[in-house]
Amino acid sequence: MQDMEFTIEEGKLWMLQTRVGKRNGIAATRMAVEMSEEGLITKEEALLRVKPSQLDELLHPMLDPAAAKTHTAIAKGLPAGPGGGTGKIVFSADRAEELGSKGEKVILVRDETSPEDVHGMKPAQAILTSKGGMTSHAALVARGWGKCCIVGCGDLAIDYKNKSAIFGETTLKEGDWITLNGTKGTIYAGELPLIAIDPERNEFYKKLLGWADATRRLKVRANADTPGDAKAAIGFGAEGIGLCRTEHMFFGDRIWAMREMIMAEDLAGRKRALDKLLPMQRQDFYGILKVMGERPVTIRLLDPPLHEFVPHEAEAQEEMASRLDISVAQVKQKVEALKEFNPMLGHRGCRLGITYPEITEMQARAIMEAAAQCYSEGVKVFPEIMIPLIGTDNEFKNQKVIVERVAKTVLKEKGQDVKYLIGTMIEIPRAALVADRIAETAEFFSFGTNDLTQMTFGYSRDDAGGFLFDYLDNKILKSDPFQTVDQEGVGQLIQLGVERGRSTRSDLKVGICGEHGGDPDSVKFCHQVGMDYVSCSPFRLPIARLAAAQARIEQEAG
Amino acid sequence: MQDMEFTIEEGKLWMLQTRVGKRNGIAATRMAVEMSEEGLITKEEALLRVKPSQLDELLHPMLDPAAAKTHTAIAKGLPAGPGGGTGKIVFSADRAEELGSKGEKVILVRDETSPEDVHGMKPAQAILTSKGGMTSHAALVARGWGKCCIVGCGDLAIDYKNKSAIFGETTLKEGDWITLNGTKGTIYAGELPLIAIDPERNEFYKKLLGWADATRRLKVRANADTPGDAKAAIGFGAEGIGLCRTEHMFFGDRIWAMREMIMAEDLAGRKRALDKLLPMQRQDFYGILKVMGERPVTIRLLDPPLHEFVPHEAEAQEEMASRLDISVAQVKQKVEALKEFNPMLGHRGCRLGITYPEITEMQARAIMEAAAQCYSEGVKVFPEIMIPLIGTDNEFKNQKVIVERVAKTVLKEKGQDVKYLIGTMIEIPRAALVADRIAETAEFFSFGTNDLTQMTFGYSRDDAGGFLFDYLDNKILKSDPFQTVDQEGVGQLIQLGVERGRSTRSDLKVGICGEHGGDPDSVKFCHQVGMDYVSCSPFRLPIARLAAAQARIEQEAG
Repeated sequence: MQDMEFTIEEGKLWMLQTRVGKRNGIAATRMAVEMSEEGLITKEEALLRVKPSQLDELLHPMLDPAAAKTHTAIAKGLPAGPGGGTGKIVFSADRAEELGSKGEKVILVRDETSPEDVHGMKPAQAILTSKGGMTSHAALVARGWGKCCIVGCGDLAIDYKNKSAIFGETTLKEGDWITLNGTKGTIYAGELPLIAIDPERNEFYKKLLGWADATRRLKVRANADTPGDAKAAIGFGAEGIGLCRTEHMFFGDRIWAMREMIMAEDLAGRKRALDKLLPMQRQDFYGILKVMGERPVTIRLLDPPLHEFVPHEAEAQEEMASRLDISVAQVKQKVEALKEFNPMLGHRGCRLGITYPEITEMQARAIMEAAAQCYSEGVKVFPEIMIPLIGTDNEFKNQKVIVERVAKTVLKEKGQDVKYLIGTMIEIPRAALVADRIAETAEFFSFGTNDLTQMTFGYSRDDAGGFLFDYLDNKILKSDPFQTVDQEGVGQLIQLGVERGRSTRSDLKVGICGEHGGDPDSVKFCHQVGMDYVSCSPFRLPIARLAAAQARIEQEAG
Repeated sequence: MQDMEFTIEEGKLWMLQTRVGKRNGIAATRMAVEMSEEGLITKEEALLRVKPSQLDELLHPMLDPAAAKTHTAIAKGLPAGPGGGTGKIVFSADRAEELGSKGEKVILVRDETSPEDVHGMKPAQAILTSKGGMTSHAALVARGWGKCCIVGCGDLAIDYKNKSAIFGETTLKEGDWITLNGTKGTIYAGELPLIAIDPERNEFYKKLLGWADATRRLKVRANADTPGDAKAAIGFGAEGIGLCRTEHMFFGDRIWAMREMIMAEDLAGRKRALDKLLPMQRQDFYGILKVMGERPVTIRLLDPPLHEFVPHEAEAQEEMASRLDISVAQVKQKVEALKEFNPMLGHRGCRLGITYPEITEMQARAIMEAAAQCYSEGVKVFPEIMIPLIGTDNEFKNQKVIVERVAKTVLKEKGQDVKYLIGTMIEIPRAALVADRIAETAEFFSFGTNDLTQMTFGYSRDDAGGFLFDYLDNKILKSDPFQTVDQEGVGQLIQLGVERGRSTRSDLKVGICGEHGGDPDSVKFCHQVGMDYVSCSPFRLPIARLAAAQARIEQEAG
């Protein structure tokens, strides 16, 4: 479609200029489909005419562009969850839950969020944090829910005591209205109008995605941690779960069994605590596996460092001491001992499973018991057990032996012959370099491009806010490597990892489960290096499906 | 040399067994030299007959092996600085300085050390810390001085209040004697005898190293930050300085100018503070350059994150507020703002220089003014300015432009034509992957293998104590990758970096300045990949010289 300017002077037609006509996602989708159906363009051309990112406009309520033009943003942060959100400012998860349950629209504003804030994040229209990066807790959770979110807003200072949010010269109080544009990262004072449509009622959208599905080679999976998310993911077209994180399953009431395990002084004590977690974990996995049926579900074993499960504030430490019947000094000492200088490079991932094999055992048992239960109910599920943070083949072998032993025991106990795989996340640079060695025993690879990007660049995703803006402004980086795969650097490691992995295991299943799995350019890169699937937040699946189709069309066109 | 067992039975000689005779470093050196001079073996064979690590016994006082046999170690930590040390326990740097100045032998025992403890580390016989890894502050400083040091002693709990060190069941008080074997990482209660010899009086040692120097292709440099260390380094055979860190130059009284810069609200304020630092920095560089003369001196621009320069305790924050005439709240706010989740992957290295180009400008000016001064005194020095933490070619270009502009200005002002190079540290995995791009503008590479190992493995050197022992015990790792280059993984990146760098700049000067520069196996690897030099702590230079000679002999023998 072209916008053309012309004039007629003295009976003569003058064409002044012509350029591609701007259209929003809804219009672009409709035009592409209608033109194809009228025989003006092929289906392939139709698929290429919609930018995958334009689908965001159909998938999320968007800020009315007309309103955005007449208002000035009071601050800017990182666009962590697309779409728009408007509501009253609240500064605590409890308050968000309280007002949200009454049907009030609220925006949760915090320095950062933690798993303990989730109950207030859910009812909020949007989330705004002053700290954190594109893969901070707030960003990950919000994107998983398709919720509008802005993080790392350095211009925002929160005064919790006086319940006010200070944006430079503008100070907003609790209850004041605020509007976020999560697609651009801009923040407005007051209530701005949003526009929303329901994609499922849009026949053009459905048709275009149907064509995309028939065209793409890459499979698409979702990152989902609960049966509810898994169900939603299937609705968005998920052909499996590429990343089911298990750490969320240790919060809420279960934190007490987890803390008991952390405080235990010996193996027996840890096992007692883990025994309490086992039935709950089994139930988690049962729910997700059953929803997904025969679709593969990649379950990542416990990943975060243990200090994320202990309280750092005095009051909470006292509560912990009293509930576990130990002294406050013991709690403090443990919290202190677990503290790390650089937790992201610390005692976590498979390193935990190697120090405490009983954690791996419990999780492997929970997964296999859940799978056996599904089988016994006639549902043939397909768990893929993923060992995180592998850097050497020996680490993988160590953990695989444990998982395999437990799996065989459970399947014998239950008399079921469950099909399963044991594989690993490739998220440490060294793992990509020695992928041939790792693939000798690993049955699948999933590229964890969030951590891989952090370590390959030496950027902490939580701290990069301090310089990443400068880097983008000064064109030192072309784009944020946490949003789009850095093909020049990180991409080399991914390509090397795929090639070397398949050099020792030709049928190695390879996917990606970092945030990049929902980024169109990154999806195309994944296609080019020969991955089997991409996995992303459920709400980004339509984008991934279209991008995957475009990748194939573009590749075949040469 | 062989130990042989034999017996004579009924007039018949029976040879029972024979094996290589054990001998200490002093004996091994003497035997090798004497046998060669008697024509029994060649010089090459003599050089191969002494293990480089055996030279440690000549370079440091060692724990008497006889005494070690009759005593049981009370704890074990990481062997961060070789040799033995014995003295009375003290728990603070001030106390160490106080007793040390009276000629008492003390061992400084701390959870960890910081630049503010240096005045007490110097007079101590040895240093013992409960936390930290092989490249923690204590380990780096001690090794630089050739001082015995054990770090990351997880069995040690310090009760500063009651001035006691608890090693499991053994509790020692301030003033109690303790003995460390820094070569093995073992700790003994009480005073054990040490053995010391002076290598400079050992003719065999001197002869052997002379042969090594005539044989090796690799040059050797030292890591040194002061004129005193530089002088010592020359004594140990340094042919240049491979790493002159500049961060140490911002402590002591100068910390106040540094803090003023950090607190400054605008460019003008930062420049005012930096102007105060300029003459001091110039003096630092002048001293080191002049000592080294025409030998190259690689000076690394400011590397650590700014929060290392601000105080984290209330009392010190109050002092800072009063000295800088600002409010305590302002200090606290800045300290809070500078806090990072993963400082090692945070706002440091060239990222600081990009956000605050005025820091790079000041350091470049100080270096070039110092060099010009040396020239004007007839001493032709050779500074190599090193930009740290480069991950992209654009970062390097950004900083090189600044350094070059300042250098040209200064040299014009001073009317001197100083020869200098601008290069970079390769310490981020991505830098090795895009080394061809970086070498288009960088004139030398120095592999910073400490950080490169941290990021390639995803191990924080300060936190790895929590699992690295398990990894070594379980043979998941063959050796500590912070001591010996991990050839399988990190080594791939080094080799790639050298090859790609030279693909765009054939005369690229390449060295290594991580701790590995003094490790015999790593030195051999550096020779194999074609580096020009290795750089290590002055006290490890003799080891590097012998290892470099062995590398060449072994390579030529095929």
